[in-house]
Amino acid sequence: MKLLKIYLGEKDKYSGKPLFEFIVKRAYELGMKGVTVYRGVMGFGHKRHIHRSDFFSLSPDLPIIIEIVDSEEKIHVFIKEIENVEFDGLVFTADVDVIRMG
Amino acid sequence: MKLLKIYLGEKDKYSGKPLFEFIVKRAYELGMKGVTVYRGVMGFGHKRHIHRSDFFSLSPDLPIIIEIVDSEEKIHVFIKEIENVEFDGLVFTADVDVIRMG
Amino acid sequence: MKLLKIYLGEKDKYSGKPLFEFIVKRAYELGMKGVTVYRGVMGFGHKRHIHRSDFFSLSPDLPIIIEIVDSEEKIHVFIKEIENVEFDGLVFTADVDVIRMG
Repeated sequence: MKLLKIYLGEKDKYSGKPLFEFIVKRAYELGMKGVTVYRGVMGFGHKRHIHRSDFFSLSPDLPIIIEIVDSEEKIHVFIKEIENVEFDGLVFTADVDVIRMG
Repeated sequence: MKLLKIYLGEKDKYSGKPLFEFIVKRAYELGMKGVTVYRGVMGFGHKRHIHRSDFFSLSPDLPIIIEIVDSEEKIHVFIKEIENVEFDGLVFTADVDVIRMG
Repeated sequence: MKLLKIYLGEKDKYSGKPLFEFIVKRAYELGMKGVTVYRGVMGFGHKRHIHRSDFFSLSPDLPIIIEIVDSEEKIHVFIKEIENVEFDGLVFTADVDVIRMG
């Protein structure tokens, strides 16, 4: 089984709506199994865009992190599903051993 | 070393008390080492039970995520310890290389 | 690529300032790529120091978790960078397959 982890900004949009909501809805529609959304307190990525207004004061664009656990096949399908969605975020997969699924 | 990750709902109960508190207390009693509890902002699992009242409005049953890092032997003992506890949650392990432990 | 995960307490200090801010600033200065900071709701580590005043009431010293995703070489450099910083925290690395980086 695979863990898919997607990092994006709270303010990232897709078709005018929050991108993380789009991703979570697609995950639901495609029947993905273990989906969890976290909010981070700060972060920065490839483009050095810091998700805080200055380094240690509050900003409105905080990191959102989505974790999905499913079979390698379904994770692969889901990656294809979102590969044309543009955002300045990190996406990785990792191997996990599922002990219990629901 | 292993990372054990347990996903459950804030409202899941064990003997009338919050399940996550039971799990964390057992981890403490058994001398597990790196134990961290997160609260997610939304999630859904195997049974398609969404941890939000409707997709994007607030619900009281938010995801709780517990991470425990310890030796393979102790993680195995801990999995046995909670395997009879019923909840609609995901549990996985993954390999990690510990650089520093406390 | 590697995931580096650092667990510490919100109150841990380095040169009189919050340790997590020092670590995040060094990560930024060294050009690390995917850096995300989370706040946990409770935790305990090697020294059995519980990051809550008693087991289930609020405490001011909550866990802070830093995730950094970068190449094995840069993660190695960063581990060297922080290895002389003293704190009661857990540090591990894990293998990840990066699908997209910014």
